[in-house]
Amino acid sequence: MANFKTRINQWIKDHREEGTDLLQRLVQAPSTQGNEAGAQAIVAQKIREMGLQVDIWEPDGGELKKHPYFYSPRSEFSNSHNVVGVMKGTGGGRSIILNGHIDVVPDGDRNQWDDDPYSGAIKDGKMFGRGVTDMKGGNVSLILAIQALKENGIQLKGDVIFQSVIEEESGGAGTLAAVLRGYKADAALIPEPTNMRIFPKQQGSMWFRVLVKGRSAHGGTRYEGVSAIEKSMTVINHIRALEEKRNARIRDPLYRNTPIPIPINLGVIEGGNWPSSVPDLVKMEGRMGVAPEETMEQAKNEMAEWLLKIKEVDEWFKDHPPVLEWFGARWVPGAIDVEHELMNTLVNQFREVAGQDPVIEASPWGTDGGLLTHVGETPSIVFGPGVTEVAHYPNEYILLDHVFTTAEIIALALIQWCGMEPLQDEQDAVLASNEDK
Amino acid sequence: MANFKTRINQWIKDHREEGTDLLQRLVQAPSTQGNEAGAQAIVAQKIREMGLQVDIWEPDGGELKKHPYFYSPRSEFSNSHNVVGVMKGTGGGRSIILNGHIDVVPDGDRNQWDDDPYSGAIKDGKMFGRGVTDMKGGNVSLILAIQALKENGIQLKGDVIFQSVIEEESGGAGTLAAVLRGYKADAALIPEPTNMRIFPKQQGSMWFRVLVKGRSAHGGTRYEGVSAIEKSMTVINHIRALEEKRNARIRDPLYRNTPIPIPINLGVIEGGNWPSSVPDLVKMEGRMGVAPEETMEQAKNEMAEWLLKIKEVDEWFKDHPPVLEWFGARWVPGAIDVEHELMNTLVNQFREVAGQDPVIEASPWGTDGGLLTHVGETPSIVFGPGVTEVAHYPNEYILLDHVFTTAEIIALALIQWCGMEPLQDEQDAVLASNEDK
Repeated sequence: MANFKTRINQWIKDHREEGTDLLQRLVQAPSTQGNEAGAQAIVAQKIREMGLQVDIWEPDGGELKKHPYFYSPRSEFSNSHNVVGVMKGTGGGRSIILNGHIDVVPDGDRNQWDDDPYSGAIKDGKMFGRGVTDMKGGNVSLILAIQALKENGIQLKGDVIFQSVIEEESGGAGTLAAVLRGYKADAALIPEPTNMRIFPKQQGSMWFRVLVKGRSAHGGTRYEGVSAIEKSMTVINHIRALEEKRNARIRDPLYRNTPIPIPINLGVIEGGNWPSSVPDLVKMEGRMGVAPEETMEQAKNEMAEWLLKIKEVDEWFKDHPPVLEWFGARWVPGAIDVEHELMNTLVNQFREVAGQDPVIEASPWGTDGGLLTHVGETPSIVFGPGVTEVAHYPNEYILLDHVFTTAEIIALALIQWCGMEPLQDEQDAVLASNEDK
Repeated sequence: MANFKTRINQWIKDHREEGTDLLQRLVQAPSTQGNEAGAQAIVAQKIREMGLQVDIWEPDGGELKKHPYFYSPRSEFSNSHNVVGVMKGTGGGRSIILNGHIDVVPDGDRNQWDDDPYSGAIKDGKMFGRGVTDMKGGNVSLILAIQALKENGIQLKGDVIFQSVIEEESGGAGTLAAVLRGYKADAALIPEPTNMRIFPKQQGSMWFRVLVKGRSAHGGTRYEGVSAIEKSMTVINHIRALEEKRNARIRDPLYRNTPIPIPINLGVIEGGNWPSSVPDLVKMEGRMGVAPEETMEQAKNEMAEWLLKIKEVDEWFKDHPPVLEWFGARWVPGAIDVEHELMNTLVNQFREVAGQDPVIEASPWGTDGGLLTHVGETPSIVFGPGVTEVAHYPNEYILLDHVFTTAEIIALALIQWCGMEPLQDEQDAVLASNEDK
């Protein structure tokens, strides 16, 4: 066994320049929503050269729209391809999906960037640029892991399905399209930016809107009206109580360092239109965290039932109940058993390569892992080299060392998970030894 | 004395049709801001026919802008005239300003009106239309009162200064311009819509804005940020406490039926821009009621000092104090001694004509009486025929009976306040009686 480990380690050392160059070219191809074609072409060419069976297609918006888990601000995906590359196993091993998204969020205010957001500039072992951490660095780790196996003549028994998908940042339509195209596996790994922590659980989330009613009056006689702003304070406190109740149920040690495992965030408030009038309507919008153990529907129902109970807090709401709406984006939660064999595999190989125990936590945000788990029936782990803190921020960067260490861990994990045919030279050695006898 | 009272009563009965026609023509001339010329022409023609000395001018925006009490969204008043008519007294009597505004607020959503907003339609003793109650009905009461004196040959000793001003609904620039033109008197009467209650005090008000800061974070880890929405709740409670403190000081029996004599109303709230982010800024706008006994500056300072104290409630505000701004409109409070001679006069004549005691209260809103009192040094009373509840609302109306009753009360009050020369026929009678001796 030491043999192939040494080879992989050496191969990755020898291919740092090639990997760095690939990552830089990917960062320099700005793949914001609708502009993924350039970066996907680089990916497709690379995996074709590596000898994978390549599948490229434009997701069918019409078909996707019918699916209950579809969400995107668009339903037309011309020139926004998904790219999948399959390395078929020899048979008898476990299969795996390696999923990474190619889309990046917009670069925002360019004045906040020290360099061009798509420079791919390298300083002090870091590469900079939009998407380098979220998650082109992780994608390169996947590619290098597969390439390391290929070029060292390592044959796996199980299938490896590499996916470069669109739309993760906008609701997961790319991964959903891959699931609907039939791609499933025994497990999945998604190298989103976790700072190399291992996330067997991911918080899901949904957006909601609450409309709070009041009754208008002139501000000089405000006591003749009912302020929707004051009533909103009651609603906010009521929602806080729900958050407390929901989080009190969560006792999973994965959350021991998380103050609020599934927060309910109120992000937007807007109400009233005249300083001298008592406001009769306030609109609030927020994000409800969804636990890995619950369904979106359960969470929705709990919120709806809880809001109905507010009439017990304040009689006003009997005749003027808050109106609850679900809108916009939602991210399905994900969970895999911490004793799942892929977890053990990943932890083992992390220790092997990094020489220390990995941090295992639950993530506070969703990934496409929720869709893979709940729609694709493929339990998923999130583990990647990117820097969590700079995702979506100016001067996004990644530590190049982490890209290569992650590639090595994943390569070894693939061998352990999928199973490996004896190496040709080992076979030769066995044959030679037999001949000797 | 019974003689001229009977005559005035009879004259007003005989001129109901003429008064109704005048009011209808005024309502049918929509005098929203910038469009006052048509209605002012009707007023000017009427008072010229009555023999008043007429003064018509366009307020000088350049001059007004320099005045600390000026507020208007515009500073150009071309074709927006003030109209003043003076009935000079014979000398030795007290003078009075009779002030009414000609501007009306916009008609708003026409679908909420049963008729055209400028129909002046009459049904069941009510006339309908934008501005009929606020305050063209009151203006017609003033004109009829003066005309009744004129046409009955009643000569007053003190001057009567009738003012038809622009801009009351937008901050009082019309009345300010009249003050700056030199019009002053021993007292003033403003027939704003009080339901024929007498208001010796009027609440003033100012608009303010409060900016509340937070610290942004992702909603999935909201505990890493500080929600400006939650901090706003602390600010709202703090402002409520200030309102309580300020109102506890007010013991004037005029406010005995007013739950909150000088409310602080929060009319607008707006903050955050993304459901999944912790909001880092909330803006609130409101109206601070100002007591007749305090100055605008005192009220401003009290609010500013109180907001500084919020750091004692929550340490967050030590480094992130709420930012207070004063903006937009303000209305100066007004007050006259309840024992002022014009109060006694008005109460007497109300009893005389209406056969019952008037309701005397403090008003919950400002009028141009604040400017007349504080800038024009002319103590003012607000008393008029309009229906308080429908001012600024669709289907605004006035009870025509009240217009004429008010006219009669004001005519008699003018006689008592300004003093009256003996009537010609009374003089004749005295002379005749002397000849008899």
